[in-house]
Amino acid sequence: MEIKVVKNILEANEVIASQNRELFAEKGIYVVNLMGSPGAGKTTLLEKTLKRLKEKKRIAVIEGDIATSRDAERIAAYAIPTVQINTGAACHLDGNMVRGGLKELDLDQIDLLIVENVGNLVCPAEFKIGENDKVMIISVPEGDDKPLKYPLMFQVSSVLLLNKIDLLPYLDFDIERFQNDALKVNPNLKIMAISCKTGEGLNNWFSWIEEMTASLFPLMDYS
Amino acid sequence: MEIKVVKNILEANEVIASQNRELFAEKGIYVVNLMGSPGAGKTTLLEKTLKRLKEKKRIAVIEGDIATSRDAERIAAYAIPTVQINTGAACHLDGNMVRGGLKELDLDQIDLLIVENVGNLVCPAEFKIGENDKVMIISVPEGDDKPLKYPLMFQVSSVLLLNKIDLLPYLDFDIERFQNDALKVNPNLKIMAISCKTGEGLNNWFSWIEEMTASLFPLMDYS
Repeated sequence: MEIKVVKNILEANEVIASQNRELFAEKGIYVVNLMGSPGAGKTTLLEKTLKRLKEKKRIAVIEGDIATSRDAERIAAYAIPTVQINTGAACHLDGNMVRGGLKELDLDQIDLLIVENVGNLVCPAEFKIGENDKVMIISVPEGDDKPLKYPLMFQVSSVLLLNKIDLLPYLDFDIERFQNDALKVNPNLKIMAISCKTGEGLNNWFSWIEEMTASLFPLMDYS
Repeated sequence: MEIKVVKNILEANEVIASQNRELFAEKGIYVVNLMGSPGAGKTTLLEKTLKRLKEKKRIAVIEGDIATSRDAERIAAYAIPTVQINTGAACHLDGNMVRGGLKELDLDQIDLLIVENVGNLVCPAEFKIGENDKVMIISVPEGDDKPLKYPLMFQVSSVLLLNKIDLLPYLDFDIERFQNDALKVNPNLKIMAISCKTGEGLNNWFSWIEEMTASLFPLMDYS
């Protein structure tokens, strides 16, 4: 019974997410759904990304949080269009919430939309929002045993950012085990080890997201 | 519509959780629902707690995980009754899952039942399982801004364990801000700063849980 209900919710969400997807395609917007546990470093990654790319791409951000607009306030400092969605009791963003947020944005002026999901390693993985790619961020202090324990998010993500590698000397984290387990769950996962604090590895991420955004505009390349 | 469905699920869960609660009371079992994000340190805290208390109290453990029995295997080393519940798609334990797990335990031989919930700072807070107290564990690397961003778990918990304080020198974490925010959300919260790695602060936790367990057996104190 409960499973049936959940299925219906998921199916209804698929429909709305597909509509979002079509709208984004029509407008030529590349959309990333950024997911990870509370404190994995989603907002900090976003800040670094904005700092690096905001002169090159027209970026907008949707911030999903259960409560407060703290993350949106951090992003507002970068003077780019930002929408805060407070999900209240909901532990994830869904297609409909994102659709509501789009009303606040001028979609003709955006190349790249980054949606920061609610901090949660579980539920957001189940709900499409119309994104091109799901990107997950997990941090070294969360432990190297997570891919097999929380497989769905690893399965659905295109990129896995392993953050806070500056803390490796202080923690027992077996990177090789972590990578092997992650690739067991999803052999296509692109894994990038980064530190938002020291900047290590971030260039790989910047290149990837810039390339993905650019790849949507082959017709606009008149060079 | 969706909200209505969720409400029904929550109400159905309340009924089962109350029945669990009555059963635990009848058997004189003190039950803790241990919650926190992936990697906050739930299983390690459990190991430390078992090591300290297993000669004094008859303890049993229910391990909730989406997948794998890794945590249960870690706990099995302490030779106490352990039940693994794999929740599959579900991001939390509910009353019914715990009820299923109880069939594997001899409830007449247990003083203290610790239920380690699925790693998730959001959803488990909504689902009672029949516990006496909810205990949440959060770790320093998760950041000091969590109480206002994820208020429900702070609201429903009796104890907040702030773990991994050995990492404070390497991170920007404002303990005072964190404590103030947590108490704003729940003025009755007992906050204990701990490090499962160094052992700092753990005696407060051991005393608390031992006392809570003992308080259920006033008639058995013949001293």
